[in-house]
Amino acid sequence: MNELIEKAKKLKSASDFLKKTKAKEKNEAIRQIAIALEKNMDYILSENKKDVDIARKNGVKEALVDRLALNEKRIKGMIDSCNTVINLKDPVGEIFDSFLREDGIRISKMRVPLGVIGIIYESRPNVTVDATILALKSGNTVLLRGGSDAINSNKALVKVIKEGLKNSGIPENSVELIENTDRALVNEMLKLNEYLDLVIPRGGKGLINFVVKNSTVPVLETGVGICHIFVDESADVMKSIDIIDNAKTQRPGTCNTVETVLIHKDIASKILPDLKKRLEEKNVEIRGCEEVLKHIDVKPATEEDWATEYLDLILSIKVVNDLDEAISHIKTYSTGHSESILTEDYLNAMKFVEEIDSAAVYINASTRFTDGGEFGMGAEMGISTQKMHARGPVGLKELTTYKFVIQGNYDVRG
Amino acid sequence: MNELIEKAKKLKSASDFLKKTKAKEKNEAIRQIAIALEKNMDYILSENKKDVDIARKNGVKEALVDRLALNEKRIKGMIDSCNTVINLKDPVGEIFDSFLREDGIRISKMRVPLGVIGIIYESRPNVTVDATILALKSGNTVLLRGGSDAINSNKALVKVIKEGLKNSGIPENSVELIENTDRALVNEMLKLNEYLDLVIPRGGKGLINFVVKNSTVPVLETGVGICHIFVDESADVMKSIDIIDNAKTQRPGTCNTVETVLIHKDIASKILPDLKKRLEEKNVEIRGCEEVLKHIDVKPATEEDWATEYLDLILSIKVVNDLDEAISHIKTYSTGHSESILTEDYLNAMKFVEEIDSAAVYINASTRFTDGGEFGMGAEMGISTQKMHARGPVGLKELTTYKFVIQGNYDVRG
Repeated sequence: MNELIEKAKKLKSASDFLKKTKAKEKNEAIRQIAIALEKNMDYILSENKKDVDIARKNGVKEALVDRLALNEKRIKGMIDSCNTVINLKDPVGEIFDSFLREDGIRISKMRVPLGVIGIIYESRPNVTVDATILALKSGNTVLLRGGSDAINSNKALVKVIKEGLKNSGIPENSVELIENTDRALVNEMLKLNEYLDLVIPRGGKGLINFVVKNSTVPVLETGVGICHIFVDESADVMKSIDIIDNAKTQRPGTCNTVETVLIHKDIASKILPDLKKRLEEKNVEIRGCEEVLKHIDVKPATEEDWATEYLDLILSIKVVNDLDEAISHIKTYSTGHSESILTEDYLNAMKFVEEIDSAAVYINASTRFTDGGEFGMGAEMGISTQKMHARGPVGLKELTTYKFVIQGNYDVRG
Repeated sequence: MNELIEKAKKLKSASDFLKKTKAKEKNEAIRQIAIALEKNMDYILSENKKDVDIARKNGVKEALVDRLALNEKRIKGMIDSCNTVINLKDPVGEIFDSFLREDGIRISKMRVPLGVIGIIYESRPNVTVDATILALKSGNTVLLRGGSDAINSNKALVKVIKEGLKNSGIPENSVELIENTDRALVNEMLKLNEYLDLVIPRGGKGLINFVVKNSTVPVLETGVGICHIFVDESADVMKSIDIIDNAKTQRPGTCNTVETVLIHKDIASKILPDLKKRLEEKNVEIRGCEEVLKHIDVKPATEEDWATEYLDLILSIKVVNDLDEAISHIKTYSTGHSESILTEDYLNAMKFVEEIDSAAVYINASTRFTDGGEFGMGAEMGISTQKMHARGPVGLKELTTYKFVIQGNYDVRG
């Protein structure tokens, strides 16, 4: 029996326990994880240094090394996450949609954990802790498969997490890391329908597509965001510039960052010069369609720009004839993440909301709000861009399912 | 471009229309389908006769021919389904989980259609109509792939459905049937992530497993049910026999029929003789474990019996030492459909509900209630035995998703 099956079996068995575990014990386990992280900071940092040294030796770009590197502040960030998750309400056990039939049978839905969740992720070692505590709090056990470049960090973190669990009432086997980072094992993991209830890929487009294409286990797609803002003719120019600035520059590497701004032709001459000025102050490179180039001197956009998630200080801008053209552009290039209309026209706002089918559809706000914290969920496992099961931020509730509970009095169907 | 891609493209384009269509127009379309079914009854029956004749010529068993055969009554049943679905509440557009942030931004979820739904099904031609009207009412377009044995019936039904749609405001291309029943096309269909939002297999275990294993499109598994009833020591003997009788014999070919009864050892001698008598009156074959054989003279059960969905007048019975053994047996052999405990002991009832993780968990009622109609959904596309997205009966609401709608006042994230 290989490592994968062995660990999957342990997780499934621990899952029977976790399903019944009450919030008090789950919170205590997360508290013990926080304590263990604090106590083992030096150990974690020294193991992380091995990964960082290897990455540098292999000539990995500094931006990527930065995603990999831990320091005291980042470990304190993990501990903060533990405290945040402890304070979230446990969704398990909630009774909803309950009704009493005319014959006296009560039918209710009861929220229950999914079971065993697999997470496949890249570089950032903080996902190891974040994913684990969200899974545990929602009553699930978790199979982690991190990137090979972070293997020493992830091994250290899981060792420390298990040390924390040892001091709690929750089985150590509630979290397992696949230590063999051979790609073939990922493929095997994606076929473990007998043990895994869900697989969540967290990373770039390549990883997500690979998982969608190869998994027979149900998948929750997270992440890729080609987000749009449409500036309608009726929008306030300066307020629109504030929003575009915020949506592009507040944290350009995130999936809810705007990548393309669509501007109504009748407001183009009013907004473009000031928008260019503001974005250049923030070091944003603008790529414009032919019509944009008539108003401001920027780099021309190519067809490829409309289909690119820059995750960087680059913004493509296109002038459109009307709302219909904006909607049609979004339908063609959107990844279904977040789109916003800036407008003071009621009918246009309503039409945009009706016709745009993305996880988050905004009227007069920055796309940067698409986030579990901002949406009142406290924390998130990622942003789902698929339609099944959960859409938008995936919080604790989205990591659960329900079962029907039927309470009768020796009833038979007539 | 082959038939499949061509039809998928048409459906995706019609889906943009259906998403915006209001209940009034959708109901009118379904009414027109009902009218067309009534008007074309002779045509449908004569096309169906071709399938029936071919099946008989090929020596297909009469039970299966019966699943395939239509008659006036069965077409009237389809028309009744149309009227039922017209009277159901349209789930699309519902606003829920709405809240106002402290800064005045309103965040809400809005229920929206999934888009394009693929249905892969076997023999029974009524699924062609049922699946279509449920999909349309929930704002989805539908790609149908029926069995080759029903191809003439399905072609006729879809022709008639399209005739109905022609008299309504909904595009004819909202429903398409794959006419080429080559198996290879199913495989191709399961990879159409660009066009299909969901695939639902309706049929036997073989079909469902094939779809789960081969689909990159998200799947909603429906169907297989190895359902259990556990008779606790404290249960009323005669009422328990009534429930077992109902759960086994009311409609033995359905997925919510009980297949295995587990009996607490301390009630075995009291219930088994009368249970045998009742079931034999109903022509049910009993297969018992060794312990059962000590009480009544029936056929011995083999290991295979515990893992079999009979869908027939056969029942396996096992005596267990206690509730824990019953739960453990169910965990091993259940398909996660429906399980019931018959008991008057409060703690045992609570424990059963907590530990059994099936779509429907019963206290003191027949498993036969697991049904969209009985659960207040009016109609259903099948019973989901998976945990993602929807569990239990799949009604109109379960054929939708949601999007977040965020209403701001030119807000930026701080």
